[in-house]
Amino acid sequence: MYKGVIIDLDGVVWRGEKPLKNNIEAIKKLEKSGLKIIYLSNNATRSRIEYVYKIRRYGLKASEKNVINSAFAAAQYIVENGGSNIFIIGEAGLYYECTKAGLLPVTIGTPAQHVLVGLDRFVTYNKLLYATELIRNGAKFIAANTDKTFPVENRLDPGAGSIVAFLEASTGKKPDAIIGKPNPWILDLALRMNGLSRKDVLIVGDRLDTDILLGINCGADTLLVLTGVNSIEDIEKTGINPKYVAKDLLSFINDYPELFGL
Amino acid sequence: MYKGVIIDLDGVVWRGEKPLKNNIEAIKKLEKSGLKIIYLSNNATRSRIEYVYKIRRYGLKASEKNVINSAFAAAQYIVENGGSNIFIIGEAGLYYECTKAGLLPVTIGTPAQHVLVGLDRFVTYNKLLYATELIRNGAKFIAANTDKTFPVENRLDPGAGSIVAFLEASTGKKPDAIIGKPNPWILDLALRMNGLSRKDVLIVGDRLDTDILLGINCGADTLLVLTGVNSIEDIEKTGINPKYVAKDLLSFINDYPELFGL
Repeated sequence: MYKGVIIDLDGVVWRGEKPLKNNIEAIKKLEKSGLKIIYLSNNATRSRIEYVYKIRRYGLKASEKNVINSAFAAAQYIVENGGSNIFIIGEAGLYYECTKAGLLPVTIGTPAQHVLVGLDRFVTYNKLLYATELIRNGAKFIAANTDKTFPVENRLDPGAGSIVAFLEASTGKKPDAIIGKPNPWILDLALRMNGLSRKDVLIVGDRLDTDILLGINCGADTLLVLTGVNSIEDIEKTGINPKYVAKDLLSFINDYPELFGL
Repeated sequence: MYKGVIIDLDGVVWRGEKPLKNNIEAIKKLEKSGLKIIYLSNNATRSRIEYVYKIRRYGLKASEKNVINSAFAAAQYIVENGGSNIFIIGEAGLYYECTKAGLLPVTIGTPAQHVLVGLDRFVTYNKLLYATELIRNGAKFIAANTDKTFPVENRLDPGAGSIVAFLEASTGKKPDAIIGKPNPWILDLALRMNGLSRKDVLIVGDRLDTDILLGINCGADTLLVLTGVNSIEDIEKTGINPKYVAKDLLSFINDYPELFGL
């Protein structure tokens, strides 16, 4: 029986602004049964608190303890690795989480020991130039995530991973750390904050290359729900195999109530 | 005996704003002996005419016929491949050469059959987003050059190749064509415009990975001058072997006057 469920946001709780009702109904049942619900998102542009408010709007329980995104996780990683001055390529949420974590985001020209890269839709050449110079001179190169694109309506827009690709070319270096899914650090942080271990949880997500691969990389159980990006056909195409597949979380907990003590 | 000499600009004729006197003196001697002098630069941010004026300031002969850069060459390539509307990520020189070549540079939102990418120090996310969308929808992806960095004083700044890396990540595609050195197209264009063939010329440059590799790729003779980026030690490191090496062009033509009919 699972003690907790790790839930992706976009494609599981909502798609854009549209709530995914069957998944939300299932999460409410799991909340009532006493399972720990942890929301885990690769998005680094927003602070956790923005997500807390959005999740609560759908009648779900949320706090900064059970809502973890790559902005927060990257800030924690850098703090735990002795960070102080940090040069950020990113948006408001990344600045917020780094500041709250005790780091000092600096502007162009000020020395920094870490360069943290997330999606930045206001990125300029001068920001990339200064990040290049810092990394070439020995600053640690940290990627909040390496998602090359993210879905927006019926388009795929460039993500943090495309900015990381620019900096890999300009510096000749790979990131010293990648924080977001499918890398273990963000999961282990979320588990540690909630008193759980990898074996205690089921990871629920709509993406094979982030959510499901995270579970595989960590030896944690996974459920692919077909309410977002990936379809059953994609499993064969990618070779990334979830433990379970279901059309949504509600049908899954109805089929396997015993896994959740329901 | 050579009929023409292909000369790189930065690192051969000047370094930044500093003229390289021995190389310039040698070029003047070659001009007097009747050899065709062709200047070939990977820089796509300026128009040829900007270079013509700069080259003339050092007392050398220059016109838009013997000064070829990747901005002009890319525009020619696209014209010869049926281009009309073009979306440019680049600076003033790239817009100028495309316009003079008869192409129509369009802004965000207007359909285009080609996306042309050069160094753009004013690049924004919205430009990259629109380029991504066009390329994903079938527009040809043309790189003026893929130089990942370029030397500026004692720094290496991000070049067109870093922007190309971003778009490779965001589109999942490689460029359909790369115009600049070390790719043959720019050399063949320069030769064609001046009535020469690959066997007629000596390529003179300071960079192994562009100038010298161009000669190797095209079966043309090459001379590495040690007045710019690369040193003799770099030859072994890179495995890129020029036919000749000299400290500068003047010492080379003094040692081998017969190659130039001097």
